[in-house]
Amino acid sequence: MIPRYSRDRMAAIWAPENRFRIWFQIEAHACDALAAIGVIPAEAAKTVWEKGDLPYTPERVARIDAIEAEVKHDVIAFLTELSEHVGEPARFIHQGMTSSDVLDTCLAVQLTQAADLLLEDIDALLAALRTRAFEHKMTVCMGRSHGIHAEPVTMGLKFAGFHAEFQRARTRLVAARGEIATCAISGAVGTFANIDPRVEEHVAAKLGLLPEPLSTQVIPRDRHAQFFAVLGVIASSVERAALEIRHLQRTEVREVEEFFSKGQKGSSAMPHKRNPVLTENLTGLARMVRAYALPAMENVALWHERDISHSSVERMIGPDATVTLDFALARLTGVFTNLVIYPEAIDRTLNQMGGLVFSQRVLLALTQAGVSREEAYRIVQRNAMEVWNGQGGLLDRLKADAAVTDKLTPEALEELFDLGYHTKHVDTIFRRVFGDN
Amino acid sequence: MIPRYSRDRMAAIWAPENRFRIWFQIEAHACDALAAIGVIPAEAAKTVWEKGDLPYTPERVARIDAIEAEVKHDVIAFLTELSEHVGEPARFIHQGMTSSDVLDTCLAVQLTQAADLLLEDIDALLAALRTRAFEHKMTVCMGRSHGIHAEPVTMGLKFAGFHAEFQRARTRLVAARGEIATCAISGAVGTFANIDPRVEEHVAAKLGLLPEPLSTQVIPRDRHAQFFAVLGVIASSVERAALEIRHLQRTEVREVEEFFSKGQKGSSAMPHKRNPVLTENLTGLARMVRAYALPAMENVALWHERDISHSSVERMIGPDATVTLDFALARLTGVFTNLVIYPEAIDRTLNQMGGLVFSQRVLLALTQAGVSREEAYRIVQRNAMEVWNGQGGLLDRLKADAAVTDKLTPEALEELFDLGYHTKHVDTIFRRVFGDN
Amino acid sequence: MIPRYSRDRMAAIWAPENRFRIWFQIEAHACDALAAIGVIPAEAAKTVWEKGDLPYTPERVARIDAIEAEVKHDVIAFLTELSEHVGEPARFIHQGMTSSDVLDTCLAVQLTQAADLLLEDIDALLAALRTRAFEHKMTVCMGRSHGIHAEPVTMGLKFAGFHAEFQRARTRLVAARGEIATCAISGAVGTFANIDPRVEEHVAAKLGLLPEPLSTQVIPRDRHAQFFAVLGVIASSVERAALEIRHLQRTEVREVEEFFSKGQKGSSAMPHKRNPVLTENLTGLARMVRAYALPAMENVALWHERDISHSSVERMIGPDATVTLDFALARLTGVFTNLVIYPEAIDRTLNQMGGLVFSQRVLLALTQAGVSREEAYRIVQRNAMEVWNGQGGLLDRLKADAAVTDKLTPEALEELFDLGYHTKHVDTIFRRVFGDN
Amino acid sequence: MIPRYSRDRMAAIWAPENRFRIWFQIEAHACDALAAIGVIPAEAAKTVWEKGDLPYTPERVARIDAIEAEVKHDVIAFLTELSEHVGEPARFIHQGMTSSDVLDTCLAVQLTQAADLLLEDIDALLAALRTRAFEHKMTVCMGRSHGIHAEPVTMGLKFAGFHAEFQRARTRLVAARGEIATCAISGAVGTFANIDPRVEEHVAAKLGLLPEPLSTQVIPRDRHAQFFAVLGVIASSVERAALEIRHLQRTEVREVEEFFSKGQKGSSAMPHKRNPVLTENLTGLARMVRAYALPAMENVALWHERDISHSSVERMIGPDATVTLDFALARLTGVFTNLVIYPEAIDRTLNQMGGLVFSQRVLLALTQAGVSREEAYRIVQRNAMEVWNGQGGLLDRLKADAAVTDKLTPEALEELFDLGYHTKHVDTIFRRVFGDN
Repeated sequence: MIPRYSRDRMAAIWAPENRFRIWFQIEAHACDALAAIGVIPAEAAKTVWEKGDLPYTPERVARIDAIEAEVKHDVIAFLTELSEHVGEPARFIHQGMTSSDVLDTCLAVQLTQAADLLLEDIDALLAALRTRAFEHKMTVCMGRSHGIHAEPVTMGLKFAGFHAEFQRARTRLVAARGEIATCAISGAVGTFANIDPRVEEHVAAKLGLLPEPLSTQVIPRDRHAQFFAVLGVIASSVERAALEIRHLQRTEVREVEEFFSKGQKGSSAMPHKRNPVLTENLTGLARMVRAYALPAMENVALWHERDISHSSVERMIGPDATVTLDFALARLTGVFTNLVIYPEAIDRTLNQMGGLVFSQRVLLALTQAGVSREEAYRIVQRNAMEVWNGQGGLLDRLKADAAVTDKLTPEALEELFDLGYHTKHVDTIFRRVFGDN
Repeated sequence: MIPRYSRDRMAAIWAPENRFRIWFQIEAHACDALAAIGVIPAEAAKTVWEKGDLPYTPERVARIDAIEAEVKHDVIAFLTELSEHVGEPARFIHQGMTSSDVLDTCLAVQLTQAADLLLEDIDALLAALRTRAFEHKMTVCMGRSHGIHAEPVTMGLKFAGFHAEFQRARTRLVAARGEIATCAISGAVGTFANIDPRVEEHVAAKLGLLPEPLSTQVIPRDRHAQFFAVLGVIASSVERAALEIRHLQRTEVREVEEFFSKGQKGSSAMPHKRNPVLTENLTGLARMVRAYALPAMENVALWHERDISHSSVERMIGPDATVTLDFALARLTGVFTNLVIYPEAIDRTLNQMGGLVFSQRVLLALTQAGVSREEAYRIVQRNAMEVWNGQGGLLDRLKADAAVTDKLTPEALEELFDLGYHTKHVDTIFRRVFGDN
Repeated sequence: MIPRYSRDRMAAIWAPENRFRIWFQIEAHACDALAAIGVIPAEAAKTVWEKGDLPYTPERVARIDAIEAEVKHDVIAFLTELSEHVGEPARFIHQGMTSSDVLDTCLAVQLTQAADLLLEDIDALLAALRTRAFEHKMTVCMGRSHGIHAEPVTMGLKFAGFHAEFQRARTRLVAARGEIATCAISGAVGTFANIDPRVEEHVAAKLGLLPEPLSTQVIPRDRHAQFFAVLGVIASSVERAALEIRHLQRTEVREVEEFFSKGQKGSSAMPHKRNPVLTENLTGLARMVRAYALPAMENVALWHERDISHSSVERMIGPDATVTLDFALARLTGVFTNLVIYPEAIDRTLNQMGGLVFSQRVLLALTQAGVSREEAYRIVQRNAMEVWNGQGGLLDRLKADAAVTDKLTPEALEELFDLGYHTKHVDTIFRRVFGDN
Repeated sequence: MIPRYSRDRMAAIWAPENRFRIWFQIEAHACDALAAIGVIPAEAAKTVWEKGDLPYTPERVARIDAIEAEVKHDVIAFLTELSEHVGEPARFIHQGMTSSDVLDTCLAVQLTQAADLLLEDIDALLAALRTRAFEHKMTVCMGRSHGIHAEPVTMGLKFAGFHAEFQRARTRLVAARGEIATCAISGAVGTFANIDPRVEEHVAAKLGLLPEPLSTQVIPRDRHAQFFAVLGVIASSVERAALEIRHLQRTEVREVEEFFSKGQKGSSAMPHKRNPVLTENLTGLARMVRAYALPAMENVALWHERDISHSSVERMIGPDATVTLDFALARLTGVFTNLVIYPEAIDRTLNQMGGLVFSQRVLLALTQAGVSREEAYRIVQRNAMEVWNGQGGLLDRLKADAAVTDKLTPEALEELFDLGYHTKHVDTIFRRVFGDN
């Protein structure tokens, strides 16, 4: 997580202000529950909210940091500072709880907040993709396998494909959010020896979490591993979309371009030098988000009821993975929204091979017209090789080949070169992806 | 995937016999659909089933291999061999389809078959864990954080924790199975130019798959990335369980042991030398399954409508990841089923620290009895340090300390050392994990 | 490691026959050393060689497997079978040694054998690259940054760049080979309690290894981690070279093509459909070799004097990584050796932008001729935009622009478009890469 | 890279102040070289140094940032600000150079600076390990394989083993430093079209780098991949050392403890609760440094003469990997330096199994005394099982077993239990690790 690749809202989730605010809420809600079951005075719980529910200003954060520098314990520092506001009833805060109860539940809240922003990001991306997909639903372009021209597709299908992919990403992220949205307030080894499970239930409900069915001292880390693995998969989808743009923008293709503002430096003396820097950047960011999945998986196997090896990892990948993916999704949305599409270039590519991409269909038509497979192959091959050697287009050549015209009329031949043949099921596919609208 | 870490049923999924059988089914079902919509004669489709639906014997596989060696194309070799059985109507097979239609749909079937076996594995593991959990529900043992004694838990809670974890693994795997259970029969670039979408729908239904909403030439690889990522997370959970056994078996702890058959070499002259080799092995296998998630994620960003870089990766990790995880899950089930648990050792550990693990609770009790927090701390500390230095147990020392007995009766003190305090919510936790039964 | 991506010599290193042969050599050389220091009779050592130094035939391997199935211990099974040939003196074999002494030293031999083959592979690759580099030293082609045309380079420079990269790969591999070329015969925990260090020294010398300065029970695994990490880096260089070919072969570029034999199926009816399948395949294989580096790194942190978690990992990645990289390097050598290069296409690309790639140089020349930077920019921009919009080539336009011709003669202008300007230091670079020859 | 896990000197390498300082040096040295070969006036080069060689204060950094916000180009912003100090001769700066010349060479300088700090870290670690190794050279302790007691080793051997491992780490890091210590000033596509190679040679020499034999626009990224892979391997060695401490500190072993200062919170009421938090933390940090190796490897395969996907990765892992490893190495040095070692606990462990670890040696002695292997085994087994069942120690039992005393005198028996047997080659091993000192 570096400022260059951060957006404010996501970064704010990981700021101390937000963390302390969540800690306070956990403690205050716990007080309510403790009061409700008679463990602490109701008045104390009330006072905690009344006197303690204040914004965490930079001054308060600095005060907590100063205390922590002394006592070397973050939760104790937090509680000490809080007691300076709450006064005497502060001694009822945190009763029967362990630091991990606060830390792990807070991480759950932060990750769900992060997931919510990422879901917003994906929704924005889906909207952008949908717009471009319908806009170019029937913009026929060359389809390529192995980087080699194959048969026509449409630009809309490309966007629709990414839309389908990010719909899946969305579904995965919703599930992953559910994985990490649990609350643990179960004490030093998860037995509730010193705190009633009803406290956990109350706090969970208030924070929009579910109680963790069985925590040890910590919420089990397979949940987090799954969460970060899903971010890695989503980042890989970002990379796929970015790669498509990079390929379509390379000089020899130039069917699309990332938006390049008039004022952008150096554009006009070398007008061809418009680099797909945004999508190149996304390719790199995807590598990072993917890499973070691994330490998250290594974090699962903690010793016994917990060790703390996962902590340093999460302090780093918690912000790093979510901030980077948030930035990447937003950047990708911008790229698609502003993408400049060049229909003439798309057409030029379609015609580049002199109609050779239709040779397969001609072959089939000849066979259906009664020519043997071998003979049909010879006929097509003969003409294809001439086209390949730069001797005209395939359609013209076939029209001039008696072995062809014996079997197929010029109209029939032209029909074989009709792009409509390739787009006749685009509606079907769009219905599958976007529903009936 | 090496024989040493393979089980037959899973390995068989990746054998050529199974692959060719699936290919046949795809082609034959496609013929039915093509016949139904009048593209090929109904009689031809019927003949394909009647003459072609034969087991793929080693002889047939060898014949296909021989043809492939010549034509350098696996699907063509397969079709050629098939035509030798089906005869003339064979020319209607594969009409309008592309190799990827067969290959990708086959991979979907293989991965769902693999997922089904893995789900069986997890169910067996869950059953074993449940049995051991209830058996040792109230076997109180030491809970540890950081590898250091903390407060008591029960052996049953440990098993229940793994049960909860593998329930989550199961849920994830069911979802991951859904991810890869799609069928693509959409032609060279996914436009259905040469084949009607109804063929895909028919074949999908017959094979228990859903039609892929939008394939390019291939089924999008974010699906597979998600699948293998989930296997990596599950493997990490295997590692966690294995690590727990390894720790509990180390000589200084020796609370459990992997089952060690009487005849096993070398056991009796060095009776202590019982190595947790099964769980050590599982630790290594987990590393492998985890590693396979990465190339699967790198596979997502294919060029345009497809490139074939993913293919070599999948030829390797398809078998490697599923076979290894299948083996690991089965081995882990065996480890838990046969795990030898030593209650005396567990008790010995509980008492090892002379009751120091109860010091926190004593502190609390003194405070509640009116002693100031500072004074209570001094009292407990004084006694704790003596115990730490080997001067008796904490309970005995406290009973002899007037500063304590002034405030707490011997009975009250003994109650503080009652293990029942720590197990009072075990029922609650079990209900959460296993439901009300 | 699957047959499709294996070559015989490398696969043979990992076959049981080779493993047992190395085991025998370790044991027999150890006997010599034990005899030399008087621990066992000289006659016994002699007999071991005379009667035991036999090829490991499939029959012998089967016999060993059968024994292992019974005794559940690979080294004991091996020794038992060996004793059937050596007879009574067999009891002197393995004296004071531990299984790991044999297993780890054997792995060292296998990995050095594998490294030697990989070094041969790299040498062959370097030779192929050198040939193509000199052949096309001055074949000027377009250089690209961001996939966008930049300034001219030469095809020879591209090959020379890969040559330099694989020279580095070679240096790294030699160092990595040194890392794993150590011998450990130090007993159960590495103290030489039961065996004299001179045995280790002798065996090491005989096998071309160095004695491991400090083994525990095992050779420390940071050595192996480094080895596999280097393979991962080399695989990444394979990927880079493969990617270059894939890019240059895409339909819109088509400056090179992987060799496509006349007989190769389907080539002539769709002559453009020549897919860079070999380099696509290499891209996938690189992902695998890279992935294996991770479990190798996770293997480093073994418990105390050893645990056996690394073993399953190495049984898999030992063959998988070396066999796959061997295959990949050989395939890449073939790709370069047979690569078809199309000079006309290369020229066409060079001219594709109407000379816009020279605009920067014109700008500089105008400035040097006394035009202000701003005015020079305006002049070049004006003409560049026309070229960009398809109105002729840059040189012709400039020749017709009085603001230019006022300052630069036609000859001076033409010189600015001289490709020789860009190749004047190719010799220097070649000398750096290939030395003075 | 987060402040919690950062140290100042390493973090400073990645601060803008250092980056701009290096940029200035590259530019100024390039001016010298350009002047020397007559491309720019000597006076201009002189002025650059005289007026431009000023510290980069926060104010200057802010000024550069402000310019960059406007022109959207970091190097141009830097040059513009520099020209404000240098005045008119500034127009000679950067002549014929491309941004990457500055950026890549700067990264090389930063990474060599980072490598130098890491080498210092390793040297400090080696010194600490050496001290502890000699201090405890003959502190006999239990050796363990599989976490199970095996045969005695010494604490010194453990430290010496880590010493040997970090010596290897040092050698690798020196080589890795060499990999990335190259300078590229070769222009837009690496052909030196616009700048003489002698400029690169001069700047390289001045900055302690070697000229990159062949750069494209960039220094090839296999160099950086190798660098970060080596950091990953070194981090894995950190993990191994950390794991050893964690194991030895667990409550049931407690042979060592991380230093725990008197004042450290909560230590005395629960004196056993001293958690190995530093080494747990190191375990997590190792996971991170390892993970960064992967995107570095994925960075190798850039498109053609360069794409910019590597840039975002390096902006993150450059600081993240070096700062984290620097912190980890320093922390590990502190852990070893201050490690509290408990000889009594070590002895207690040695005796824990009642001498069973010597059973193997007794077996051998009986055989050598003429007892058949089978009979010897029965004798030892009989006694071992009693010891295992808590019936006394092995030595005492053997002394009371006539079948033993028939063959071995009490003195001979006692000698078999002599720890000196296990330490007789410690000197040899130390000589191998530390040399003859």
